[in-house]
Amino acid sequence: MNDSAYMNLALQLAKKGRGWTSPNPMVGAVIVKNGRIIGQGWHEAYGRPHAERNALETCTENPKGAVMYVTLEPCCHYGKQPPCTEAIINAGISRVVTGSADPNPKVDGKGIQILLEHGIKVTEHVLQEECDRLNEVFFHYILTKRPFVVMKYAMTMDGKIAAYTGASKWITGETARNHVWKQRRRYTAIMAGVGTVLADDPMLDGRIKNGKNPIRIICDTRLRTPLHAQVISTAEQIPVILATCCNDRDRKRIYEEKGCRIFTVEEKEGHVNLEKLMERLGREQIDSILLEGGGTLNWAALESGIVQKVQAYIAPKLFGGEKAKTPVEGAGIEFPSSAFQLKNSTVIRLGEDILIESEVKPNVHGDY
Amino acid sequence: MNDSAYMNLALQLAKKGRGWTSPNPMVGAVIVKNGRIIGQGWHEAYGRPHAERNALETCTENPKGAVMYVTLEPCCHYGKQPPCTEAIINAGISRVVTGSADPNPKVDGKGIQILLEHGIKVTEHVLQEECDRLNEVFFHYILTKRPFVVMKYAMTMDGKIAAYTGASKWITGETARNHVWKQRRRYTAIMAGVGTVLADDPMLDGRIKNGKNPIRIICDTRLRTPLHAQVISTAEQIPVILATCCNDRDRKRIYEEKGCRIFTVEEKEGHVNLEKLMERLGREQIDSILLEGGGTLNWAALESGIVQKVQAYIAPKLFGGEKAKTPVEGAGIEFPSSAFQLKNSTVIRLGEDILIESEVKPNVHGDY
Repeated sequence: MNDSAYMNLALQLAKKGRGWTSPNPMVGAVIVKNGRIIGQGWHEAYGRPHAERNALETCTENPKGAVMYVTLEPCCHYGKQPPCTEAIINAGISRVVTGSADPNPKVDGKGIQILLEHGIKVTEHVLQEECDRLNEVFFHYILTKRPFVVMKYAMTMDGKIAAYTGASKWITGETARNHVWKQRRRYTAIMAGVGTVLADDPMLDGRIKNGKNPIRIICDTRLRTPLHAQVISTAEQIPVILATCCNDRDRKRIYEEKGCRIFTVEEKEGHVNLEKLMERLGREQIDSILLEGGGTLNWAALESGIVQKVQAYIAPKLFGGEKAKTPVEGAGIEFPSSAFQLKNSTVIRLGEDILIESEVKPNVHGDY
Repeated sequence: MNDSAYMNLALQLAKKGRGWTSPNPMVGAVIVKNGRIIGQGWHEAYGRPHAERNALETCTENPKGAVMYVTLEPCCHYGKQPPCTEAIINAGISRVVTGSADPNPKVDGKGIQILLEHGIKVTEHVLQEECDRLNEVFFHYILTKRPFVVMKYAMTMDGKIAAYTGASKWITGETARNHVWKQRRRYTAIMAGVGTVLADDPMLDGRIKNGKNPIRIICDTRLRTPLHAQVISTAEQIPVILATCCNDRDRKRIYEEKGCRIFTVEEKEGHVNLEKLMERLGREQIDSILLEGGGTLNWAALESGIVQKVQAYIAPKLFGGEKAKTPVEGAGIEFPSSAFQLKNSTVIRLGEDILIESEVKPNVHGDY
């Protein structure tokens, strides 16, 4: 086995922490001596020991002279836990292989530096892309203090999210819809526009009884969400945030009495200023959002530069219809060269449907 | 190796005839004796011996008692070649394994029956789906006498075939565009609407100098194609058919003098009756069409039931735009339950782009 193979094992261990480590990242570590794996560990939950210490703990032989593979640069400062660099040095590890660099700009390679100063060999950037992707939400949030936003939509193979009548149940099949519900439990919040609430009256929940539910955020510039909407009537059970530009205190109070929180945000081009809203949500510790908007909200989100990732569920059917809605509308770009560019697409088959996931390239689209 | 593995080998051999066998199907054959492959062959070109005889010809041992794997039911009638059943019986083959049944309704299993009457064991339908797909054009054309129509379009991940301004160069990257040109050489004709000619003035050729070019068919209900359009000015070099409802003899003559053929077809809902056009093109020995229409023509084609397959090239970019064009427009279906259903989708990555190919389920969409 080479460095990549051991790092891949560390990655698999890291994933065991998914859902438990927030706001910490997922981390995995493997210790190898003379070609034998002598220790393995991962960061199991927030507040519990880091992956490196867990791996050292499980060692079946003295780790002196061994190599440690760890998906993230070891920490070098006291937080909830003592610094991992200390544990590595004390254990006599002779070489450390890392995947991701510590995303915290304050650290800036200090963990690596301390190891080097103690005569430990260091190999960086092994499977870095995979390691970075594992913690994409964490990295984005720690660097920007704003939520990682995933724009999700389901469309037909001719790009429609509804028939011309507005009817949209269902575009995709059960396997794909189950996948969406899993995504809803993976991110901290779901965001939709008031248009979607008015059209479909969705619950926007995680669909598991007593299971984890995302916080629901409704962009409602003029506060038009009906009081009898499902999101409002369940606000006491599953948190709801209404983001609005409305300044009518009395109307806001009605929603508050139903259990909603109201975030009043300044207006931008006729809708809630999404950049400002993201700042506010970031301060509220919301690190990630699944955006399930219609074409108008999706365009506003793209244009505001708040979207990091796109999930397009594509169903093997055709609706046709010059007037049928599409996933991103608004004004649109003027020329193909100014398109919003996506990268690193992955394709997953979900029953008869296909999911394409892509990252949004930052700041590369031209003027529009 | 089992029956499927040998049949798969026969399939690979069959493909070597691609582009040469029309209007015959592609066929491959493998002969196996005591677990050893003793003969292989394929139908190399129209007018040349069939796969079965070619395989027998190459036998390195006496084929008496051997098993023959052949992708298509052996023929039993005299055509350009003597019947293959005769050759199989004379060679002493003890078992025949077939993939596709002979699509010709006149044969109706007679080839199989003759083999059985001569004491030869027969196993049918091995890898039938794959074998059928290999000759989808041939099977469709021989059964319906109409061309096999592939609806092709390139769209962004938000379902746009152009920006709101109409600009559409380019949606996909070079690898995908090369793939399209290869498709154009694979089918007998390309069909587009006059709208596409007016908007983009395309050549609609195979893009290889002195290479095979498809016949170009323009659906031009009112005969509006500009005389200076590239398709018209190159009509002497690459055939052009204008399908129209126009009855003005003088105007038609101008196009004919430029080298175009004019097919006058009755009108249906304001456009060329596509079913009638397909009948006419079928009589002209056009067995396959790559439909590169805009949203209007694509919808008319779908609604007329003439489309067998859809090729959606999807580019990792987003255009947005409420007014941007989508691949299938027209009226559209009213409810998701009446959508045109697709099946057997395959996904191919072409550089950064993704190609989804699906078959159109016949007659299953409801009323719209």
